[in-house]
Amino acid sequence: MHFNKAAILGVGLIGASFAAALKKYGLCGEIIGYGRREGNLKRAKAKGIIDSFELDPAKTCTDADFILLATPVGNFVDIARKISNSLKRDAIVTDVGSVKGKLVRDMEALMPEGVFFVGGHPIAGSERSGIDTAAAEIFRKATCIITPTGNSDKSALDKVTAIWETFGSTVKLIDPDEHDRIYAAVSHLPHLIAYEIVNTVADINSSYLAFSGQGFKDTTRIASSPPEVWRDICLLNRDNLLEYVEIFKNNLDRVSQYLRANDSESLEKDFTEARTLREGIG
Amino acid sequence: MHFNKAAILGVGLIGASFAAALKKYGLCGEIIGYGRREGNLKRAKAKGIIDSFELDPAKTCTDADFILLATPVGNFVDIARKISNSLKRDAIVTDVGSVKGKLVRDMEALMPEGVFFVGGHPIAGSERSGIDTAAAEIFRKATCIITPTGNSDKSALDKVTAIWETFGSTVKLIDPDEHDRIYAAVSHLPHLIAYEIVNTVADINSSYLAFSGQGFKDTTRIASSPPEVWRDICLLNRDNLLEYVEIFKNNLDRVSQYLRANDSESLEKDFTEARTLREGIG
Repeated sequence: MHFNKAAILGVGLIGASFAAALKKYGLCGEIIGYGRREGNLKRAKAKGIIDSFELDPAKTCTDADFILLATPVGNFVDIARKISNSLKRDAIVTDVGSVKGKLVRDMEALMPEGVFFVGGHPIAGSERSGIDTAAAEIFRKATCIITPTGNSDKSALDKVTAIWETFGSTVKLIDPDEHDRIYAAVSHLPHLIAYEIVNTVADINSSYLAFSGQGFKDTTRIASSPPEVWRDICLLNRDNLLEYVEIFKNNLDRVSQYLRANDSESLEKDFTEARTLREGIG
Repeated sequence: MHFNKAAILGVGLIGASFAAALKKYGLCGEIIGYGRREGNLKRAKAKGIIDSFELDPAKTCTDADFILLATPVGNFVDIARKISNSLKRDAIVTDVGSVKGKLVRDMEALMPEGVFFVGGHPIAGSERSGIDTAAAEIFRKATCIITPTGNSDKSALDKVTAIWETFGSTVKLIDPDEHDRIYAAVSHLPHLIAYEIVNTVADINSSYLAFSGQGFKDTTRIASSPPEVWRDICLLNRDNLLEYVEIFKNNLDRVSQYLRANDSESLEKDFTEARTLREGIG
């Protein structure tokens, strides 16, 4: 498997790490980057992460046989519309976005005849953004979710799967809507909560933040995640997220009731259930 | 500063680490442990953490000139009542509990004439409990909050402060009620939330837990904390905690409203405020 020209749309932590991995494993000839910030693209080129760059997504994709979308997910549809007429027949378009579901179907619908979209979501990266922490290794021993649909091209699906396996990731195939239900629970809700824990302490008394220990720091580490990335994810997965926020609030209401009733036994039982589940994931 | 006999009531992670630090820095002669589980006390003795043990708190404190309360905070008042008649004049009683406030005043009131209570709370330890992770070093470079009141004996306060400084901790003196407002915000609320994030995912679909990445694991690490310890802390600081849960729920309601209104700008602004504050604490 070898691509002549790979277009990386969005050269941030994940896009740049993907480009680095393509090079490391010799999967492509030339890599061209697209982004909104020219300074960042220049730095990526100087670091050898990309070979060249464009500030226009359509130009970036001309002649590319592999296209990766790695911008905030809110830009995907707009970018797909812009690149649609420039896409080469048999080109593979994939992404690394944290939302799938309807977005995958929208992307499929925007592909021209003979161009195939396959949705992907590597469970990698961190709260750090940008190319300075980018590395091919972040995908090693990571899980990558691939979300085929009834419209997926088998050959494109196999190639995208093979790329991630070459990067050292374990690929799991999951329905796009199920993906969004899962990640709303184990990722999007925790991010929303982490941001709001910090904002809550600020509401109470922001000087209290200076007293935080390792527990607070770990619990809110992901509140350092890039706001524009998480704004898009939360909005695009908002139906699941809103439903889960209510379930979470019901849990808070239940333990609040235990506190008000001084119900030591129920509170300990509640915490023990959580602890047992948490211990189960290592 | 040297104590002839130190009584450690509660030989878990913090109690055992304190005992280890007393020995390491040569601050006392004999160390006697008390706890409810004889097997644990035998292991602590075999490991050389304590020199001997008792299963009765009053006997443990007989002739002790230094007494540390390191059980779950819900037992402090009961223990204070039991040991009160056994306490030697000029003995110093201190603790490592995560709740101060009214508990400090209750403890002061339960001390016999000539015995001094000084409240302490080292910001150390982890979600792991028990003596196997105990070590004198956990207090090095940690903060220890000491909570003097108008009733505090100056000499006892100075000695307790000196102990923590000898252990390598930075001591901060804080009013007991202010301590509880601070730690309800930066510790007790995050613990409650971490437990309830896990329980929420279980409500949604417990099989989703297997998909969790590092973000989920960090955010919920403290949900592995010992339930009986956190049950007591939450109950003893429940007024602050209940107030803060409401503030937190208001924050969740506000961002939920942004999601429903598809208000991308407000959502990003909200996340950016949180991120800026979070970055500020390292």
